[in-house]
Amino acid sequence: MRLTTLAIGLLLLSGAAMADTKADIDAANKKFVAAFTSGDAAAVAALYTTKATLLPPGQPVMTGRPAVETFWAGAIKSGLKNVSLEAQSVESYGRTTAREIGRFGFEIPGSGRVEGKYVVVWKKTGKTWRLDTDIWNMDK
Amino acid sequence: MRLTTLAIGLLLLSGAAMADTKADIDAANKKFVAAFTSGDAAAVAALYTTKATLLPPGQPVMTGRPAVETFWAGAIKSGLKNVSLEAQSVESYGRTTAREIGRFGFEIPGSGRVEGKYVVVWKKTGKTWRLDTDIWNMDK
Repeated sequence: MRLTTLAIGLLLLSGAAMADTKADIDAANKKFVAAFTSGDAAAVAALYTTKATLLPPGQPVMTGRPAVETFWAGAIKSGLKNVSLEAQSVESYGRTTAREIGRFGFEIPGSGRVEGKYVVVWKKTGKTWRLDTDIWNMDK
Repeated sequence: MRLTTLAIGLLLLSGAAMADTKADIDAANKKFVAAFTSGDAAAVAALYTTKATLLPPGQPVMTGRPAVETFWAGAIKSGLKNVSLEAQSVESYGRTTAREIGRFGFEIPGSGRVEGKYVVVWKKTGKTWRLDTDIWNMDK
């Protein structure tokens, strides 16, 4: 009986930790959108780990924060706006790694809204969750 | 000194486990290509976990083996051939989860070769590594 109580307690703790991770990732996504919207590519790049891998459609793989910053600076310069990010599934792999599946959207001036889906592997460095692997594609 | 020896031993073991995971994933990728090439969508789907998530470009998210099988059956039927998969980076998250970054290619009859990149999160179920999250996009 005490073991069952312990097991239930551990399950509840584990569930709470998962909910915390989801909340942390939601908060990081809000920071991403805010940094992008304010045109601050360096602030977007700072949300990634230093060795992050970015895999954008139609472009080669990019590695490291400077490359990540250059990519997002280009996206900002191209005029993309009304960016949205929404986590739909977050799964923890231990205490410092988590996989997010989400949906994104943005507007291209003059050609309407683009929507798609992404997978991000997040790593916790210190107390902060950062994007470590980031790949996406379009719905259409 | 003995602690250093122990630490080095653990590092070597950890490196060996990582190399094993890479080798297991390479082997699973070979099975994928063989199953695809022989036109066996059920055998391709069996390489995924039962709850796998597939995120193909230009299509909605698909979840579960039956959906995965339907997707690959369609790709086989459309005549894609000379499929290639090559793991470029494998990182372990504990003993039963790993992230692969790789490159793929295939030929569309009459319109040449398409190349791109992918991220797969693998889960070890029993002794077998299976694709659990699978997303890709094209280079061009």
